[in-house]
Amino acid sequence: MSLSEDSRYLKGGPVAQRIIAAVREDAAIAKAEGFPPKLISITVGDTAAVDVYVRNQRAKAQLAGIDFEERRFPAAITAGELEAAIHGLNADPRVTGIIIQRPVPVHIPIRTLQAAVHPLKDVEGMHPASIGNIVYNQLDLAPCTAAASVELLKETGLDLKGLEVVIVGHSEIVGKPIAFLLMSEGATVTVCHHMTRSVAAHARRADALFVAVGKPRLIKADMVKPGAAVIDIGINSEIGPDGSSRIVGDVDTESVREVASWITPVPGGVGPITVAILLRNTMVALSRQRALYEATYGTADRLAAE
Amino acid sequence: MSLSEDSRYLKGGPVAQRIIAAVREDAAIAKAEGFPPKLISITVGDTAAVDVYVRNQRAKAQLAGIDFEERRFPAAITAGELEAAIHGLNADPRVTGIIIQRPVPVHIPIRTLQAAVHPLKDVEGMHPASIGNIVYNQLDLAPCTAAASVELLKETGLDLKGLEVVIVGHSEIVGKPIAFLLMSEGATVTVCHHMTRSVAAHARRADALFVAVGKPRLIKADMVKPGAAVIDIGINSEIGPDGSSRIVGDVDTESVREVASWITPVPGGVGPITVAILLRNTMVALSRQRALYEATYGTADRLAAE
Repeated sequence: MSLSEDSRYLKGGPVAQRIIAAVREDAAIAKAEGFPPKLISITVGDTAAVDVYVRNQRAKAQLAGIDFEERRFPAAITAGELEAAIHGLNADPRVTGIIIQRPVPVHIPIRTLQAAVHPLKDVEGMHPASIGNIVYNQLDLAPCTAAASVELLKETGLDLKGLEVVIVGHSEIVGKPIAFLLMSEGATVTVCHHMTRSVAAHARRADALFVAVGKPRLIKADMVKPGAAVIDIGINSEIGPDGSSRIVGDVDTESVREVASWITPVPGGVGPITVAILLRNTMVALSRQRALYEATYGTADRLAAE
Repeated sequence: MSLSEDSRYLKGGPVAQRIIAAVREDAAIAKAEGFPPKLISITVGDTAAVDVYVRNQRAKAQLAGIDFEERRFPAAITAGELEAAIHGLNADPRVTGIIIQRPVPVHIPIRTLQAAVHPLKDVEGMHPASIGNIVYNQLDLAPCTAAASVELLKETGLDLKGLEVVIVGHSEIVGKPIAFLLMSEGATVTVCHHMTRSVAAHARRADALFVAVGKPRLIKADMVKPGAAVIDIGINSEIGPDGSSRIVGDVDTESVREVASWITPVPGGVGPITVAILLRNTMVALSRQRALYEATYGTADRLAAE
């Protein structure tokens, strides 16, 4: 049997469906108990670039039985006005989670907006407190793309304890959170980036290789350990010789699949799972909000819920 | 020249003195401007184990011109009462920072107490939001031991960009924060721990090796790359053949100093810097509090300060 026959694609679709089905069950129970989950999507200014994403989020939310409401703000809004709107949503018990669609106009500091979302409503997992909670091994609510990537690795069935993991790309919302998530699961993690002396030397010793740098076909077959799992998080638009454009990842899939035991297709790998994680995060947020509510107004010890 | 002659100890004392002198200048200016920095130390129950640390903190704070006040609570206090006391300190504009001395009695959940401290008063750098801010490259306020260890590495003058760093130990307040601090400085970081298949294999390729696991003499000379910098964060009590006890680190210093170019003594390496970082964190907290105050009550844009 050749290596290529032994290789297999890690497809995101079935994983996403499984997650959404579980969310659907949870959401139905929560709704029956009087706590219907609800997402608010915030877009600012020209939304043409994000409309396709928002439509997809809405469709998947409906599938899962989660209300989805869009709030569109004009490009001329000030950061202070937006922050006030977010504080209003934080205070509204009917709102479970808040999504800030990117990009926002350049005069709006996106990090400040993300930090304005109450950590209990941070379904995107981007608030500094959410990131810090992952470091403290509270792994159930993480940035969506990072959590989606880890879900795909788990699909391989590899034992994460002691697994040699190399992550190429050290962004705050992808590379670094993948690192903490996997450290907490017992993996030995190395994070490489544009200042790393030899990415290839690290990549070649990885049992699991994550790549999120936005460089088409950066990872070639000679940079991958035979039998490794390769999770490709890049999304790049490439113009072919005939002038047509196509989406490719950061991994040279055709050659790497001859070496790796598992590889994610792009598109169709991490992407589909990302929205499913957003919905799962919504249910985690709802359950934390309910725990706080019950601890505050019920008889339970308030501290125990926090 | 033998390697041992080329080796040198990275002593913490001079670094601590330099940091405290800088804090002293900042504190004097802040005081003259009407914002005297003040630390509150919280101890719960039997304090015999921590008294020596608290006395040291008080002495160093006095040296730096920072007020230091102790609040001692009885062992029978509830977590809720302690949390209420912390909320009172959060709301008191005269209090710059809050230190929760460990250990606390077993019925008090320490993580909950740490999370009750407002992030703007979190001079120990242990609040999840403080940890998350480091991940987001806001590096000026970090857990004291982690920041102290990074200060010592910087003393070597090694270029952190592209430096191969290996950290042995993945605790939330030492190993992991060192990892993010150094990732943000451009190092290529690997974090090892008790589930790592071969700590030695990783350690041997490190330009800088951090060890924080609490195992006396875990790191031997054959696990260290010639010319490396070795930062020993372990503090272990060892009983000698004559029955007397002494403090040793996680590194077998006598043998490793023949191989490494830099090595921290234990005691006298990271330890002395830790309290200096606590005081420096106090001034960072004060400056963030002032920025928020001015933005809220002054004319500046409130968002810009957050």
